[in-house]
Amino acid sequence: MAQEDSIKLHRATIVGPGLLGASIAIGLKEKEMIQELWVWLRNESKIKDCIGEDWCDYATINLKEAIQGSDLVVLCTPIETIVKHINLVSEWAKPGCIVTDVGSLKKRICEEAENRFKGKQSFFTGSHPMAGSEKSGMRYADSKILQNKSCIITPTAITDSVSLNKLEKIWEVLGFRVTKMNPDKHDQVVGCISHLPHIMATVLMNTVHNSCPQQMELSGDGLKDTTRIAAGNPKLWEQILLGNKDNLVSLIEEAQTHLQEFKEAIASNNGEKVTESLMQGQEARQCLNDDR
Amino acid sequence: MAQEDSIKLHRATIVGPGLLGASIAIGLKEKEMIQELWVWLRNESKIKDCIGEDWCDYATINLKEAIQGSDLVVLCTPIETIVKHINLVSEWAKPGCIVTDVGSLKKRICEEAENRFKGKQSFFTGSHPMAGSEKSGMRYADSKILQNKSCIITPTAITDSVSLNKLEKIWEVLGFRVTKMNPDKHDQVVGCISHLPHIMATVLMNTVHNSCPQQMELSGDGLKDTTRIAAGNPKLWEQILLGNKDNLVSLIEEAQTHLQEFKEAIASNNGEKVTESLMQGQEARQCLNDDR
Repeated sequence: MAQEDSIKLHRATIVGPGLLGASIAIGLKEKEMIQELWVWLRNESKIKDCIGEDWCDYATINLKEAIQGSDLVVLCTPIETIVKHINLVSEWAKPGCIVTDVGSLKKRICEEAENRFKGKQSFFTGSHPMAGSEKSGMRYADSKILQNKSCIITPTAITDSVSLNKLEKIWEVLGFRVTKMNPDKHDQVVGCISHLPHIMATVLMNTVHNSCPQQMELSGDGLKDTTRIAAGNPKLWEQILLGNKDNLVSLIEEAQTHLQEFKEAIASNNGEKVTESLMQGQEARQCLNDDR
Repeated sequence: MAQEDSIKLHRATIVGPGLLGASIAIGLKEKEMIQELWVWLRNESKIKDCIGEDWCDYATINLKEAIQGSDLVVLCTPIETIVKHINLVSEWAKPGCIVTDVGSLKKRICEEAENRFKGKQSFFTGSHPMAGSEKSGMRYADSKILQNKSCIITPTAITDSVSLNKLEKIWEVLGFRVTKMNPDKHDQVVGCISHLPHIMATVLMNTVHNSCPQQMELSGDGLKDTTRIAAGNPKLWEQILLGNKDNLVSLIEEAQTHLQEFKEAIASNNGEKVTESLMQGQEARQCLNDDR
């Protein structure tokens, strides 16, 4: 990146520093993109935990105080809270401020933002950095979890091209591979590559637990890998899954068709059909790059 | 383990040294349970590869030569070949020889072995060491893949208790946690904890690949973990799945019920029901110990 393109902001604000928000905060400081890092917290009792972290310069439960005067605002709360905060942030963000979020669904958030940021002098573009884990909480935060992960950003009609370019660079400097698509397409794609896997892992886990609770501990890495994400936060995932209802209902139906075909092939001893499904699965899996 | 209980055999034979067979060979040598390690190979051209490995003392495509004079025979080929070999091995194994296998299904193998080894002076007990990976082949062999994994051994009416105890110790010294159950129960349990996960991973992979082939590469670790085992060898898995038909058809039907309920809960915006399934999945997943 040429010197004149480098990101040098005075202050960034992380609204809701959980695992992802705090990891972003650490990355912003490490890469020297910002001088000051402020956080907004819902819970006053956690202020002292934040202040104790060396990446955090100031922590408050006052959203207005946290937003005003910031050059970059990253909304990292659950989706419902992001939607609620957008109106307030659009009122309080200073001219030129870049506002984004990390919500797993973009259509609803970006529609709300389009309405609220229209005509404002601050700029909103939605982001979905696909980093995280089944763990949650600031204590697991680490900028390494951001490296080589995908970040989808979702420009809309109100998106300002200069701030879009800046936002893209910020994610890239943090370590992400950035892709752009519109919010509708985003929700369809993550329904497929993220939400459906969560549903299938949960269904598998519940089936195994019902069928052989006593023998689950004998399992090899196969079951563990296949169900790891089922350990994710249920309330967070409820919001995500219900928020992507239409895409998910058709994706589940497609999975149901495949599962039914697989069952019929086994039940009828159709080795050719079983092998065909297994080979398609193997080939598709080999397209995924495990090294990043 | 008391000194008098330690395993000291002269010769072991691995029939079919793939990833698992060769890893067992390495472990037997490292733990000094055997002096000589022989292998039987289907393919003459691979003899020189085996002889080149420091854990291999002799390699042959002559099964009789490989079996005669051995104190421990481990059948590590695909299931169909194990079933075919059992009769020959029962004829050629020397008195007192411990014969076992590593097949993923035990009912069919143990039934065949009960018929063939009855009245013989060598002893068969089925084993299922649950180690391995979606990779295959001797070149990935490593005794580390055996550590802290489960091994199910499946005694039957013909099982000799002295050789059963020895076999149990051999697996334990190699690093396994050993559990005993009858062959029928084994097939039901692995249908649940191993075969159903393979089917669900394949179904998910095929659904994702059909729905968003261009965007699969954006996926995070969730999709990768959840589908890793779908990269396994299709021909091997065809044998396993068709060989466990009855158990798998009912397990798939149970998964179908859970999936349908999940879809209905999402389609009807039933947040309570969605959360309930997610919470059950989270709780069940937390029972699995990722550290072993």
